[in-house]
Amino acid sequence: MDIEQKIATRVTHIEEIIRQYLPKEEGFQKTILEAMNYSILAGGKRLRPMMMEETYHMFGGTSRVIEPFMAAIEMIHTYSLVHDDLPAMDNDEYRRGKKTTHAVYGEAMGILAGDALLNYAFETATLAFEIEPGNPAVGRALRKLAVKSGIYGMVGGQVVDVESEKKPDETITREKLNFIYHLKTGALMEAAMSVGAILAGASEEEAARLEEVAARVGLAFQIQDDILDVTSTLEVLGKPIGSDEKNNKATYVTFEGIEKSKEDVKKLSEEAVEALSSFQKKDEFLQELFIYLIHRNK
Amino acid sequence: MDIEQKIATRVTHIEEIIRQYLPKEEGFQKTILEAMNYSILAGGKRLRPMMMEETYHMFGGTSRVIEPFMAAIEMIHTYSLVHDDLPAMDNDEYRRGKKTTHAVYGEAMGILAGDALLNYAFETATLAFEIEPGNPAVGRALRKLAVKSGIYGMVGGQVVDVESEKKPDETITREKLNFIYHLKTGALMEAAMSVGAILAGASEEEAARLEEVAARVGLAFQIQDDILDVTSTLEVLGKPIGSDEKNNKATYVTFEGIEKSKEDVKKLSEEAVEALSSFQKKDEFLQELFIYLIHRNK
Repeated sequence: MDIEQKIATRVTHIEEIIRQYLPKEEGFQKTILEAMNYSILAGGKRLRPMMMEETYHMFGGTSRVIEPFMAAIEMIHTYSLVHDDLPAMDNDEYRRGKKTTHAVYGEAMGILAGDALLNYAFETATLAFEIEPGNPAVGRALRKLAVKSGIYGMVGGQVVDVESEKKPDETITREKLNFIYHLKTGALMEAAMSVGAILAGASEEEAARLEEVAARVGLAFQIQDDILDVTSTLEVLGKPIGSDEKNNKATYVTFEGIEKSKEDVKKLSEEAVEALSSFQKKDEFLQELFIYLIHRNK
Repeated sequence: MDIEQKIATRVTHIEEIIRQYLPKEEGFQKTILEAMNYSILAGGKRLRPMMMEETYHMFGGTSRVIEPFMAAIEMIHTYSLVHDDLPAMDNDEYRRGKKTTHAVYGEAMGILAGDALLNYAFETATLAFEIEPGNPAVGRALRKLAVKSGIYGMVGGQVVDVESEKKPDETITREKLNFIYHLKTGALMEAAMSVGAILAGASEEEAARLEEVAARVGLAFQIQDDILDVTSTLEVLGKPIGSDEKNNKATYVTFEGIEKSKEDVKKLSEEAVEALSSFQKKDEFLQELFIYLIHRNK
């Protein structure tokens, strides 16, 4: 099986797990439940739950305790996209070729569906306490997920990104761009690997080293996004290309040029693979996945 | 000390605790940290952390483990107000006589400050795992808080309320109004008492009975809000009166009339006090508080 087939198999498996944790669309609050499920089932690479589950297995985890966390991290990722697409934010009508949540359900429901997804992520993750009531790692994993999603993680990066966009006259510094990339994309990938490892019984030191790996993957992933925005096509990418230039948005490519950016993606991915292979426990799929992500065209 | 003095003392104490858990306003994401702190320090009755701490003490709790949960529930309450005030929702420029968060920081930051507060609530609550790492009640309390804040709790009520407002031609049914009142106001009060009791070692059965008490308090509180919207003045209430009628919004008062509504507030409060006094453990302050809430004029 080549890596694309392996990924496709895992996406199917992950989506089955996610579906088990989605709310039933019934009752007075049916609309919001539909909007939540619409948002999360609208597709995506499922990269975060994929990295989480694989790291859990890498460290010898075998229980279902990982599943609510896999669903939770995808809910957090999804809510961030739903709110990012809102009229007061990026004002996007389409994502992955489908109408965005607020475009279908209206702006108020877009806001509330995002809120509901974020809350439901934590609600779902706390189901892990019922699967392994005596395992203190569950609390630690939950705290890790919360910190990496919050103002010192994903939301922190998102806020600085939005603020920078609203001040197009101010040139963004390289330091601030690093901050945004590190938090906005990297933090949830760090959470993915860290939570997987913690739940499988890894030490704090191992979890920290894995976060370093994930940070490199996250940065490579984000730079590749910038490259694709310049070099891809609407048909392949499923969204308009050249949007960064149109929005006058400084990216990694603006700072480093296209060639150096490509080199850096390669270098970061290789560093991630090397750091990963320094663990006594090996995981071939994660190594292949990190290399594959450089070659993705969407 | 009369009840108003007792409440004032507790509000001061609660706000000291909340301040300890607020983020420092520094770094690239300074604006959002300011917006979060602005929102949460803009005042309020602090009723939810007050009920939580008192219930914790009622069941013999003595540790600091309750504190991150007290801060967390107020953060959740605050985020719900910040999002409720947004232009796409109620579009309110003022709350408690102060500019609303989006009115000060802009709409995008209003959305993100709400998101950040909700996430930070869970981040803060997970600090309880570090205070009592071996206590399985922490995980149960966290799950309770998450469920009562979510689509089967506060957000669920909020969604149905917003949807009903957007369809002014459809008359709201009494059943739907009950649903909204029960979830939008009641659910977090249930969480407050339930979490306090669980953390102090109460049984599931005791927690469930306390939720019944809190549900009555929440309903009485909400009906009293409707009454004040008809009978109070702008000066006393700090917000325009008659807004429900202006917005053509059906309330408990619309269904039952003002006199019956007043009777029901009294009846619900008395039932709450009676149910509370049926516990072997007594708490005089909670009883006084529930009676006091009927007589509030703002």
